[in-house]
Amino acid sequence: MLTLYHAPFSRSTRIVQLIELMGISDRIDLRIVQIRRGDGSGARDAANPHPEGKVPLLVHDGVAIRETSAIMEHLMAVFPEEAARTVPRPGTPEHGAMLAWMAWSGAVLEPLVLLKIAGFQHPLLRDSYRDMDGALALLEEALTGRPFLMGERLTPADILASSSFPFLPGGTAEHSAITDWLARCQAAPSARAAEELDAEKAKAAA
Amino acid sequence: MLTLYHAPFSRSTRIVQLIELMGISDRIDLRIVQIRRGDGSGARDAANPHPEGKVPLLVHDGVAIRETSAIMEHLMAVFPEEAARTVPRPGTPEHGAMLAWMAWSGAVLEPLVLLKIAGFQHPLLRDSYRDMDGALALLEEALTGRPFLMGERLTPADILASSSFPFLPGGTAEHSAITDWLARCQAAPSARAAEELDAEKAKAAA
Repeated sequence: MLTLYHAPFSRSTRIVQLIELMGISDRIDLRIVQIRRGDGSGARDAANPHPEGKVPLLVHDGVAIRETSAIMEHLMAVFPEEAARTVPRPGTPEHGAMLAWMAWSGAVLEPLVLLKIAGFQHPLLRDSYRDMDGALALLEEALTGRPFLMGERLTPADILASSSFPFLPGGTAEHSAITDWLARCQAAPSARAAEELDAEKAKAAA
Repeated sequence: MLTLYHAPFSRSTRIVQLIELMGISDRIDLRIVQIRRGDGSGARDAANPHPEGKVPLLVHDGVAIRETSAIMEHLMAVFPEEAARTVPRPGTPEHGAMLAWMAWSGAVLEPLVLLKIAGFQHPLLRDSYRDMDGALALLEEALTGRPFLMGERLTPADILASSSFPFLPGGTAEHSAITDWLARCQAAPSARAAEELDAEKAKAAA
């Protein structure tokens, strides 16, 4: 039994997109909950078992699983055949490279974007994360000659890496390869399906 | 063909520990490289193909795989039988919970430790990462009644989560459950084996 606690148009929308990408929406019990939003709207939802009231949270046979990238990897492991339609098989070099982009998105790119918004620099943080120019150069290189990070198809690597950019001060106007990739990520059928689901759920909750 | 670029007593030591834990050291080509250290010693090594000269880097049949947690997950996927001796099987709820701790260590705990050292606070960073007290409380709760995060055995979740603490200003003296767990992590046979290997390689390179 897999239950996903999801708030429309939030960090958990990325999980809904993966569910659409893998075609497993009938295998997941989707529970819509409220969250406290960055703009001050919304509130913590008593129906959400996450200890901090956040989303996403996946509960698998009573075991709570947090963190977006971990939930994505877990869903791919629970449904290996459905995952294999769209992502490389576990254990292949390409699967490892996909995991690397997923880890990088949360552990490097997201801190860099937050530090940029906060306008904070520090030698120690630079040692650990380098800088946004370096991160953008890495993405640009990876996207040279291929529409998505892993090649012809959108994978969770794209879903995670692209999701920080709407918040990046200054955007990516000077990096056309990244701007074009972000547009492809947004136009992907699974992204549109997740957006439609969110619009419907948000309307129903209003 | 799997090649690990490793610098003794560095971030890549965590990968060496996993290799010891899984007993797969004869399956990995270990290449010792220099890195630029935080104290200014050392230098970038031309023999290291990592684009920023960092470690760890795993190269699998020519494909470069970065990020410590991704490399760990990839090694467990390449050697599923060896992994199953020490960690839950992929797709089980417990495996998902282990992935969540691994993702949390890089995407939440490590930024919190770095921000604490840098002495920086910001509402946006607090929204994303909460605070160190919350992180310590989460760990303490997870360690109540169990020696390691996933239960009786040390797993990559412990290797990653414990690795930020030597740098935490003030340490964990007020949190005995965490202090005791850190001691257990350090005393684990795989940690000792990795330390011995590092001491030997550092001596050979000196």
